[in-house]
Amino acid sequence: MANEKKMVEAITSRDEDFAQWYTDIVKKADLIDYSSVKGCMIIRPYGYAIWENIQKILDTRFKETGHENVYMPMFIPESLLQKEKEHVEGFAPEVAWVTMGGSERLSERLCVRPTSETLFCEHYKNIIRSYRDLPKLYNQWCSVVRWEKTTRPFLRSREFLWQEGHTMHATAEDAEAETLRMLNVYGDFFEKDLGMPVLRGQKTDKEKFAGAKATYTVEALMHDGKALQGGTSHNFGDGFCRAFDIQYLDKDNTLKYCHQTSWGVSTRIIGGIIMTHGDDRGLVLPPAVAPIQVIIVPVQQHKEGVLEAAEALRVRLSSVCRVKVDDSDNSPGWKFAEHEMRGVPVRIELGPRDIASNSCVLVRRDNLEKQFLSLDGIEETVKEQLALVTTSLYEKALANRAARTYTATTLDELISIANEKSGYIRAMWCGKLECELKLKEEADVSSRCIPFGDTEEISDKCVCCGRPAKKLVYWGKAY
Amino acid sequence: MANEKKMVEAITSRDEDFAQWYTDIVKKADLIDYSSVKGCMIIRPYGYAIWENIQKILDTRFKETGHENVYMPMFIPESLLQKEKEHVEGFAPEVAWVTMGGSERLSERLCVRPTSETLFCEHYKNIIRSYRDLPKLYNQWCSVVRWEKTTRPFLRSREFLWQEGHTMHATAEDAEAETLRMLNVYGDFFEKDLGMPVLRGQKTDKEKFAGAKATYTVEALMHDGKALQGGTSHNFGDGFCRAFDIQYLDKDNTLKYCHQTSWGVSTRIIGGIIMTHGDDRGLVLPPAVAPIQVIIVPVQQHKEGVLEAAEALRVRLSSVCRVKVDDSDNSPGWKFAEHEMRGVPVRIELGPRDIASNSCVLVRRDNLEKQFLSLDGIEETVKEQLALVTTSLYEKALANRAARTYTATTLDELISIANEKSGYIRAMWCGKLECELKLKEEADVSSRCIPFGDTEEISDKCVCCGRPAKKLVYWGKAY
Repeated sequence: MANEKKMVEAITSRDEDFAQWYTDIVKKADLIDYSSVKGCMIIRPYGYAIWENIQKILDTRFKETGHENVYMPMFIPESLLQKEKEHVEGFAPEVAWVTMGGSERLSERLCVRPTSETLFCEHYKNIIRSYRDLPKLYNQWCSVVRWEKTTRPFLRSREFLWQEGHTMHATAEDAEAETLRMLNVYGDFFEKDLGMPVLRGQKTDKEKFAGAKATYTVEALMHDGKALQGGTSHNFGDGFCRAFDIQYLDKDNTLKYCHQTSWGVSTRIIGGIIMTHGDDRGLVLPPAVAPIQVIIVPVQQHKEGVLEAAEALRVRLSSVCRVKVDDSDNSPGWKFAEHEMRGVPVRIELGPRDIASNSCVLVRRDNLEKQFLSLDGIEETVKEQLALVTTSLYEKALANRAARTYTATTLDELISIANEKSGYIRAMWCGKLECELKLKEEADVSSRCIPFGDTEEISDKCVCCGRPAKKLVYWGKAY
Repeated sequence: MANEKKMVEAITSRDEDFAQWYTDIVKKADLIDYSSVKGCMIIRPYGYAIWENIQKILDTRFKETGHENVYMPMFIPESLLQKEKEHVEGFAPEVAWVTMGGSERLSERLCVRPTSETLFCEHYKNIIRSYRDLPKLYNQWCSVVRWEKTTRPFLRSREFLWQEGHTMHATAEDAEAETLRMLNVYGDFFEKDLGMPVLRGQKTDKEKFAGAKATYTVEALMHDGKALQGGTSHNFGDGFCRAFDIQYLDKDNTLKYCHQTSWGVSTRIIGGIIMTHGDDRGLVLPPAVAPIQVIIVPVQQHKEGVLEAAEALRVRLSSVCRVKVDDSDNSPGWKFAEHEMRGVPVRIELGPRDIASNSCVLVRRDNLEKQFLSLDGIEETVKEQLALVTTSLYEKALANRAARTYTATTLDELISIANEKSGYIRAMWCGKLECELKLKEEADVSSRCIPFGDTEEISDKCVCCGRPAKKLVYWGKAY
């Protein structure tokens, strides 16, 4: 990379132009490149390594909760997509259609999967016979395609990578428990691994997944006050199972429909990480998913013993973290800026004087403060510092969310907050679609979720129509 | 699964009808299911777990040899696919075309990637500037689509999973070294991990990859004597780089074209494992990729202490292998047959008498012999037995190949071997395409490879035309 030195000054200021700042980071931190296919991105090694770390952590959690991975075809015949009415209405407008195989026109169009409920249902119908076959807990890692008009790297692209869990259960209760279990797997991952506080809650009918009975969501708030749907978990009840005739013979010798869930997160998470933690120096990565957790920068590396000491330190630290030495011929100052831009959580500087005094300088990416530390027990020190980075990122993001959470009891109040501020607006809602549409129309906000954790009744009236209201909704603008 | 007991007798005999035997195994061992998309398969949990193990081993080797993972779009615009002439001629007849996005006709057709050389070249052109940027060593794990007319699970399907490495180098020598390095990574994986002996060699011009200067291959011989191309590694020279104008500024301050390679293996490997090691009882899995390496079957499990002892043994063994206890309510005999069908490499039987004598019965899947072993040091014993399974599988397959390798010096001889036997036919070749076509026409064999390891000159004349010949070719029928 020495030949294409990227100047840190070239990043737009975050508060000046958040959108441009975001675009600068995804390009300059080498996360993505654009391709000649509009709306499809190339995920470069540094960006893909983040995704691999996300996959490893989540895949382990999925397997711990009894799920197995499978792979379904990427194509869905048009007739199969159409089997569940609401589902096809939700997805048909935004799918890519394969109409030719080689030089022959296909007798039936195939859509490139935008999601795979229909494929899983077709398979489950083949393999589920009795209560002994339940539950079925499958997941797949794959790419999906949705033909979006406006696209942005990671946040909204025509093709993206994700995982989709699809499960079948004997009872409605089991399906509901699974839906919430996986929502909490997501929530814990966001909060504990990514340092991103999330609201856990339910989507309104308008915002729920096409064909679902209930959609639950984890919603994160970005630095600029816009919300990002981080992951969703859907309870389908027996709707698809009736459409696909998926029944099992229960212990009482009667046929019953299965109850179904699905849940997914995508490479969108990477966009969320950038917009939650990043700053004017560039990316800030939570250690759990950082490709490099610790970068060792030798100082006066031409002096005898410096590179050797750096390498010895790398070997020691490699048992506790993902660590590299930057022994390129760039200056230390240049290296500092480079690794700050790439969001490496911890930097260790090591020069002749440090070596002589058995110490090093450690700088955390989240606060950039210099700490002078002994090399004795450095493994434990680094583990602690990495954990502190995650906690500190979480607390900063939580403070941002607290500062950007408003409450409105009247429509005028909500509109004025929506116009003047950026963040969540807590307000009561009667449950009517017309009020939801009116808030979109007049305040340009959508319902983000009905949170599980916040049940305080701000008022007993809908913020929009004044009718009796029991539901507290978080409203906001979203990515 | 208790409700859909699969009878072992239902597997067709391998020697009676090899094709049907294969189909029985992929279905009855729960590796795949068919989908409503012709030629696309569903890879079920047990089959997918094999692929995950293949991925883990190879991905580690790729990273150890300096490669990084990326993700490219799944679509290739028609104009991009056409940039390299031989390449498009090779692939255009068998690609799936996306022509509609939502309800709109696309201005340019997009093909679903059959392979990604063109996408990588487009990206490399963007990011390679100088000799300092080289080599670039990228790989991706993804699915690809080739619109095949005749399909078989794992062996030939319209969509399959694979990895494709794509690298750029400063010199022709570096590219050639990479091509061979990765071929040997594949070769070692087949031989040491999968117990599958392979020929390493070069493809003839007729059989090489569309657009490549040279294609190297690892060829395995199946139990029935047909060959399977296990993995290929291509040296493109600077052909694509000239078509895409990928140049770098060298140390001598002149612009030079890069030299390119690509290499890949796919889920086809699973078909190869089945057809190399499987037998009339079902699948036989090499331990390195077996989802379950050791199955513990409790005998008289209703008796006090049996299930507890089985669980204690599982815990002990879990530090050295992937191990499970089958405590279902099926009979031990039924369980034996079930796990034999699923190819579990080692079975341990544990009943009250074994427990009383601190011993167990161990049966290896490859030879089905009963061994009575002490539980003292059972971890080491199991590790040794698993290693012996791999060695034994390798030796059996090697013996099969040796028994099925023939030599021909005349066309008549070659034709009569091809008609009467099934296996490799070693024969000299003049290098002319017409002779290769004639052998296909008259003996229905294709050139499998010009092996690196076998350079003995059988004769100095081409087996087909009698002209002078220097090249020894292995001919055969192939999957």
